[in-house]
Amino acid sequence: MAGGGDWMTQFAGDAGIASAFGDAAMLQRYLRYEIALALALGDAGQADAETVRQVATAMQGFAPDLAAITAGVQADGLPVPDFVRQLKAHVGAPGKGIVHHGATSQDLVDTAAMQALGQVNDLIAGRIAELIAALSALNDRFGQHRLMAITRMQPALAFTAGDRIEAWSRPLAALRERLADLRPRLEVLQFGGPVGNLAEFGAAGPAVAAALSRRIGLPWPGHSWHNQRGPIAEYAGLLSELTGALGKIGQDVALMALRGEDDIRISGGGGSSAMPHKQNPVAAERLVTLARFNATLVSGLHQSLVHEAERSGAAWSLEWLLLPRMCEAAGAGLSTAISLLGAVQHMGTRS
Amino acid sequence: MAGGGDWMTQFAGDAGIASAFGDAAMLQRYLRYEIALALALGDAGQADAETVRQVATAMQGFAPDLAAITAGVQADGLPVPDFVRQLKAHVGAPGKGIVHHGATSQDLVDTAAMQALGQVNDLIAGRIAELIAALSALNDRFGQHRLMAITRMQPALAFTAGDRIEAWSRPLAALRERLADLRPRLEVLQFGGPVGNLAEFGAAGPAVAAALSRRIGLPWPGHSWHNQRGPIAEYAGLLSELTGALGKIGQDVALMALRGEDDIRISGGGGSSAMPHKQNPVAAERLVTLARFNATLVSGLHQSLVHEAERSGAAWSLEWLLLPRMCEAAGAGLSTAISLLGAVQHMGTRS
Amino acid sequence: MAGGGDWMTQFAGDAGIASAFGDAAMLQRYLRYEIALALALGDAGQADAETVRQVATAMQGFAPDLAAITAGVQADGLPVPDFVRQLKAHVGAPGKGIVHHGATSQDLVDTAAMQALGQVNDLIAGRIAELIAALSALNDRFGQHRLMAITRMQPALAFTAGDRIEAWSRPLAALRERLADLRPRLEVLQFGGPVGNLAEFGAAGPAVAAALSRRIGLPWPGHSWHNQRGPIAEYAGLLSELTGALGKIGQDVALMALRGEDDIRISGGGGSSAMPHKQNPVAAERLVTLARFNATLVSGLHQSLVHEAERSGAAWSLEWLLLPRMCEAAGAGLSTAISLLGAVQHMGTRS
Amino acid sequence: MAGGGDWMTQFAGDAGIASAFGDAAMLQRYLRYEIALALALGDAGQADAETVRQVATAMQGFAPDLAAITAGVQADGLPVPDFVRQLKAHVGAPGKGIVHHGATSQDLVDTAAMQALGQVNDLIAGRIAELIAALSALNDRFGQHRLMAITRMQPALAFTAGDRIEAWSRPLAALRERLADLRPRLEVLQFGGPVGNLAEFGAAGPAVAAALSRRIGLPWPGHSWHNQRGPIAEYAGLLSELTGALGKIGQDVALMALRGEDDIRISGGGGSSAMPHKQNPVAAERLVTLARFNATLVSGLHQSLVHEAERSGAAWSLEWLLLPRMCEAAGAGLSTAISLLGAVQHMGTRS
Repeated sequence: MAGGGDWMTQFAGDAGIASAFGDAAMLQRYLRYEIALALALGDAGQADAETVRQVATAMQGFAPDLAAITAGVQADGLPVPDFVRQLKAHVGAPGKGIVHHGATSQDLVDTAAMQALGQVNDLIAGRIAELIAALSALNDRFGQHRLMAITRMQPALAFTAGDRIEAWSRPLAALRERLADLRPRLEVLQFGGPVGNLAEFGAAGPAVAAALSRRIGLPWPGHSWHNQRGPIAEYAGLLSELTGALGKIGQDVALMALRGEDDIRISGGGGSSAMPHKQNPVAAERLVTLARFNATLVSGLHQSLVHEAERSGAAWSLEWLLLPRMCEAAGAGLSTAISLLGAVQHMGTRS
Repeated sequence: MAGGGDWMTQFAGDAGIASAFGDAAMLQRYLRYEIALALALGDAGQADAETVRQVATAMQGFAPDLAAITAGVQADGLPVPDFVRQLKAHVGAPGKGIVHHGATSQDLVDTAAMQALGQVNDLIAGRIAELIAALSALNDRFGQHRLMAITRMQPALAFTAGDRIEAWSRPLAALRERLADLRPRLEVLQFGGPVGNLAEFGAAGPAVAAALSRRIGLPWPGHSWHNQRGPIAEYAGLLSELTGALGKIGQDVALMALRGEDDIRISGGGGSSAMPHKQNPVAAERLVTLARFNATLVSGLHQSLVHEAERSGAAWSLEWLLLPRMCEAAGAGLSTAISLLGAVQHMGTRS
Repeated sequence: MAGGGDWMTQFAGDAGIASAFGDAAMLQRYLRYEIALALALGDAGQADAETVRQVATAMQGFAPDLAAITAGVQADGLPVPDFVRQLKAHVGAPGKGIVHHGATSQDLVDTAAMQALGQVNDLIAGRIAELIAALSALNDRFGQHRLMAITRMQPALAFTAGDRIEAWSRPLAALRERLADLRPRLEVLQFGGPVGNLAEFGAAGPAVAAALSRRIGLPWPGHSWHNQRGPIAEYAGLLSELTGALGKIGQDVALMALRGEDDIRISGGGGSSAMPHKQNPVAAERLVTLARFNATLVSGLHQSLVHEAERSGAAWSLEWLLLPRMCEAAGAGLSTAISLLGAVQHMGTRS
Repeated sequence: MAGGGDWMTQFAGDAGIASAFGDAAMLQRYLRYEIALALALGDAGQADAETVRQVATAMQGFAPDLAAITAGVQADGLPVPDFVRQLKAHVGAPGKGIVHHGATSQDLVDTAAMQALGQVNDLIAGRIAELIAALSALNDRFGQHRLMAITRMQPALAFTAGDRIEAWSRPLAALRERLADLRPRLEVLQFGGPVGNLAEFGAAGPAVAAALSRRIGLPWPGHSWHNQRGPIAEYAGLLSELTGALGKIGQDVALMALRGEDDIRISGGGGSSAMPHKQNPVAAERLVTLARFNATLVSGLHQSLVHEAERSGAAWSLEWLLLPRMCEAAGAGLSTAISLLGAVQHMGTRS
């Protein structure tokens, strides 16, 4: 593939998933967090109810200066400090003391990220279901056909196309369940304040957190997890298992395409600039590429587990350089697999 | 560290865990598999009960020629073909037709590997519990002490030693639960025959599998999983999350040791050959090393998910080059962490 | 960092380097390749000189339909087939037979990629020189100052700031030489035709290649290297060694910032949204992030060396998903390091 | 493959290469270092010549207590402190002050490691030459045969077996040159003392280093490189490029074996326990495994470049957990490739 521009975005990217990670979406989430926090302070008796109402109303009208925030990223390593500065200025005295009270940048960033993953997971879960249905339809069409099983790169014994399709489908069904199991542990509120112990609120910390959780619509796990990144590594692993399961399909289809039409016939393979007779199984190859891409990146999410002390700028940033790319690869892989299966014209031979 | 010999084995290895993967232990498991299979054939009416009894008895007296099997590994890429050849010769006619009937090498190898992981997981689960108890004891001793929280490599605000200890402990408690959840999906029987569909048995396949499952004491998931390696990648991820959680403890302790005795005092740090005044936090550093080691290796288990067709010698072998090392690193990390915490003489300052 | 949008691009990206990989730049290079090839066919007596001149002139006026090419990427897995189709249509009969004659998509894509790396390497070499100069200036200012050496996370013995600065600078000087050594082996013409043997030209293959090499301004290594990707993996390693050398500087500076002002004082550290007293060493952390990012990605370039047969769509695409990101991380790391060193107000103590 | 025991050692290991990293070999190198250092102190006028002679003679008779050193690894994180303690006790007063004077553990360990790599590189260079010769012989036998070129997993156009063999051979020739180029930069003396600046010797440091270099037979680069690990990462990359080049051969052979006897016929393929008709291309698969193994591990060597301050126990240990394994994989890969090529009975078809 040609290097690096929009073509690559198209190849390994997924616009629907990318939009969940966009700056504008993140800013909106930060603002909703701050509004919910102010209201939660009121709920928990940590701030005057009327002041809170006014501050929340004021915040709703806030239009951030995106350029200044972007410049702040360069200076501060993250967008929140300048965002909060602007927001406080917008709210003005006397209410501005309520804005961001008891919170810290990471609370906003981690929570917004989990909300982004929530959007991603809705998309991914839907596409997994769609792909399983496509495999089931493929099985309906060709499951009884005779196919040569291949073990260790040698023809072994004949079995059915359905035998192979089941081996493609089962991991997807398992991953669908795993994702459903992980989501309530992953998509949770982060709220800990500067060093994670909600010290600003004394004994009222849990009450504020509970109110914030209700307002923001994400469960509160009962503690701050700012420097405990296990579920993020687990999630990255799940994404890579998913692209791995798709890569296995792709590798199998590519080998079938090499073996010829007794194995598979696919419409709309890629054209060659030099050999018009060829129909390349480009979608199948793409699945292998995406599998190896995520299998490479997953390592970095595990390196990020060595998250020093109460907040590691180094480990934290590494997560967000890698994870959105892995989500996009998973999304692109699912779409590619769905369309690849739809292009199968024949699989195996009538027995 | 010095390169590569027994010292390294000692550094990142774990004799208890290594023994689960030893050749002799594997051979014993293969033999138990073959015996159980013969009996299961009888249970399911696929072989004469009396013949089966005789064959099983004969197999119990089998003493393999290990040197010949080892030579077979070079030729066949795995030890089972020569093992089966020897075993059939030992049983002799007429019973030898029952030996290995309907099975394939991978059935034995994968099942034995899962049994090895079962042993490993018993050890690991025990040590996680022990480490959580050690953290709890540390919290009892120093939890109320004042400690400087560090965010982004800068002193932030004071909190308590207990705040930090909780951040160390929670991921371990979560991993203990995750491991318990994964084990029934991981430690299962593999039985599929040459191409995974138990074709040898026709409609009786599930009955043979069920009988074998009872005899061998591992659940049967209802299908062959020989080319569906998701749970193995998931398990590798869990091991790496575990060493990552320990590496975070190690990194924190090393930073505390750098900051000095207001943060931590540890007995028995490593000596220097040139600077007798130094006490190096070598156990803490080791935890970081093991975390990054497993974070590196986990990538290979995900590459192995691209397991072509019905059996990939290439992808399969890669798993077993990496996974035992990851298990040992996890075991070594747990032991190191337990002994590191036991050596803590002081943490934080009295408030 | 917040996830995934332009902020991340800004954090780990480099606009100057990214532009070398842009689609428009790639298309221009493809066109220059085709023009040079047509002229080279004339030079080598493989086409009529006058026809070649007309075809080359016609091609100079070609304006590609970018949208159609982008759609072609989805279908063909790469942009060249549709580009060539358009270009031939633009040239029209009778000259269109000369367009792309004897070449294949990969010839264009690989050559254009090497030209992109040439641009990148000019930028990187310049910034390495700039950074070495900045380190030299730092040494002039503070080299004689007393600094506590740290071994194994413990204060060891005092040495000088200059001792540490030299340890930062030497790897950069070595990498500058290595890059100069690699460039003539990396930045070369790819020309092989459909299966790499220039079969279209018979005995005239080398003459056409030599003429094309002269026209296009890249050396011809004497053979096609389409499925021999060692220098690309070597280059990725060099980029990762570079960010690794910068990451060591970053890690050292972050540890110095933790130890306090006897070690280092930096202006313009990142602000905290919750703790106004803090000055976070965000540039230093960023260097660590970028080092671990490239150390993660380099693995994928090595996986791509398993490039099956005469052209692997799977392995090839993986390269271009990873390598431009590594280039950008290297570029961003160099800029970050230069500005970090410029912000050092003090290092060590007067002896 | 079965998990983890001697079989795996046999599969991915190489006894000749492993022996270079053995504990006993390392201890001998440490002792030779200490003897050479004592003599060098005399050469440079830093110690009395007669005392030095006596101390060197005494050291020649030293028999280390290996068990105590091994126990020291656990405590100190490396074997040198206890080794030096024993050696000083053996030499006794008054000479013992000369033993290890001005040196530190890392000087011995890094130098011994580079000597081990020297042995490895002799072996590897020899086997690369042998493999290139085997490819040349294969080309002599079958180079003119007709073979179907495969691009993007589809038959493309016929070319010759020689075309493919050349694509296998060229990267090996390039790597042979690269290794020869790297060795003088890699296999060098480490000598820096506790914090790397030879401070113990004042102005005489370079003279002692030069004398030590002559005595020990390794070049002195003019400075300590204890915390500058670029060449080690570069070397790991080269090993991985080597196994990658072999993995490409293996992948190609496996695909040829799948396509059948018009492509290749190999004797002595691996047997199946269930399908006697099969001849599995196990050596070819092994090459793919070893390529992906090293491609995985190389990432960890790049993570180790973030080597904090003057000595990082964490980063340093990680190197030695990974690098010997990579050397063995390279050695095993070369042997496997040589024997695989020797087993080729036929390649391509007579044209």
